Amino acid sequence: MTADTHQTAPTRYVEANGTRFAYRRFGKEGGVPLVFNMHFMGTMDHWDPAVTDGLAKDRDVILFDNAGVSSSSGDVPGSVAEMGANAIAFIKALGLKRVDVLGISIGGLVAQEITLQASDLVRRLVLVGTGPRSGESMDTGTPEAKQIFGASYEHPDDLWLRVHFTPSDASQAAGRKFLKRFRLRARDRDPDVTETAALAQRAAIAKWGAKREHAWDYLKDIKQPTLVVNGSNDVVIYTINSYILQQNLPNAQLILYPDSAHGSLYQYPELFVRHVSTFLSAADPWAP
Amino acid sequence: MTADTHQTAPTRYVEANGTRFAYRRFGKEGGVPLVFNMHFMGTMDHWDPAVTDGLAKDRDVILFDNAGVSSSSGDVPGSVAEMGANAIAFIKALGLKRVDVLGISIGGLVAQEITLQASDLVRRLVLVGTGPRSGESMDTGTPEAKQIFGASYEHPDDLWLRVHFTPSDASQAAGRKFLKRFRLRARDRDPDVTETAALAQRAAIAKWGAKREHAWDYLKDIKQPTLVVNGSNDVVIYTINSYILQQNLPNAQLILYPDSAHGSLYQYPELFVRHVSTFLSAADPWAP
Repeated sequence: MTADTHQTAPTRYVEANGTRFAYRRFGKEGGVPLVFNMHFMGTMDHWDPAVTDGLAKDRDVILFDNAGVSSSSGDVPGSVAEMGANAIAFIKALGLKRVDVLGISIGGLVAQEITLQASDLVRRLVLVGTGPRSGESMDTGTPEAKQIFGASYEHPDDLWLRVHFTPSDASQAAGRKFLKRFRLRARDRDPDVTETAALAQRAAIAKWGAKREHAWDYLKDIKQPTLVVNGSNDVVIYTINSYILQQNLPNAQLILYPDSAHGSLYQYPELFVRHVSTFLSAADPWAP
Repeated sequence: MTADTHQTAPTRYVEANGTRFAYRRFGKEGGVPLVFNMHFMGTMDHWDPAVTDGLAKDRDVILFDNAGVSSSSGDVPGSVAEMGANAIAFIKALGLKRVDVLGISIGGLVAQEITLQASDLVRRLVLVGTGPRSGESMDTGTPEAKQIFGASYEHPDDLWLRVHFTPSDASQAAGRKFLKRFRLRARDRDPDVTETAALAQRAAIAKWGAKREHAWDYLKDIKQPTLVVNGSNDVVIYTINSYILQQNLPNAQLILYPDSAHGSLYQYPELFVRHVSTFLSAADPWAP
């Protein structure tokens, strides 16, 4: 184990593809590292330490800001494909030959692109709160997401109570615990994503979501064992898109949690860590 | 632990509701027993010992034949509601006040009816390869199911390779291992279900599947924590019905396994036992 944790791992930098990528790395060394890909408007500090430290007990965890996001230099590109290429450049710049990849929301789209563009680099895939190309309401965005991201909040962090949790008392209570956890890191925090970066991310999601013929055929090319996870009521990227992913990926398991939304992994961090650990640790992911 | 296992547990009988119910009971005594509800044309011997003995390590396992099925007396009734009432009578005749209930296929329909009719009796629910009232193609049955159950097979057991497994090499290989496992019990096996019983079961499924207005509202009354499990490609009760269950049950988790069909629990017995054990053993099923 490194001495570092989610709270203490210093932000480090590596140069690749003309970008200076910010990253943090901690957990159990050796084995296949797990690279985390963040959601829309998120930085390394939006991950839940209950999830990252939970997974770091058994594996080497790598958080990073993709190009143009927060502490990384460069611009957010106009397509998810370019984001994927940037992520691959980052991973290779660390000297890694084989990684597991986890992505949430737009990070789940990037995770798919990493796998499509550099299949040999990826051992297993975890896709959370995300969807396929031309997924339901992914071109326009959902009306709920427009309302949630368009509203103003007494405290800016309260945005995430709406994005990641359902309106139920239980889910909101879990959300308030999550907000406390993700604020625990006191020093060396990532700056917020700029409005320019957020707009570019949104444009890239719309392009990914555009309607196409045979839109889901590409999923047959992702042969890696894949764990697809979502909440029962994701209104940012509709839950049905997780079902579509599982139905079209040749080797995927789907888990949907009860009374939960886009950030189901933050609502059930222990269960999520257990499911992901089982999936990543077993020699055969389906026969642990 | 009782000394008995799936292979050795004697068939016992208990009288209730005018029926002499056949059952077998084994595993770890104390705690909340888990009652198994079998699929169409199935007997106690169609359960997979890798599943039943796997779960019996941590809990008290009860297999039984519902009224009119195999070693139990009486007739198969014309509705799932009556099958549920019979199952409740059986459970109460054993003197049990609180049980966990697992059901596959028509057994999953019966499990729902047990919960609706005797909510206090049921702590948690596991629904495998099953669906809601008025689920997709549950009134007519699927064309695939008609073809599968209508065909003749060189060896009668080969029917289950088609019912429970996909055509892929990996799934069929898992199927052949399952057939060996469920034939391991040599003595005191259950007789096959009669054609009269099978026809009555089919009529009851059709009645359950009939199209209704607001068909899925009743699921809101099943407040028990519920684990819904299926294969990615169930062609007997379409996989989408498992998704519909999870989306409409107020407190349910969905797990869909890759490249698998109606009998996903027989294809991935270790993973299934792990998922069900986690779900049943935790004080809070979503925070193990």
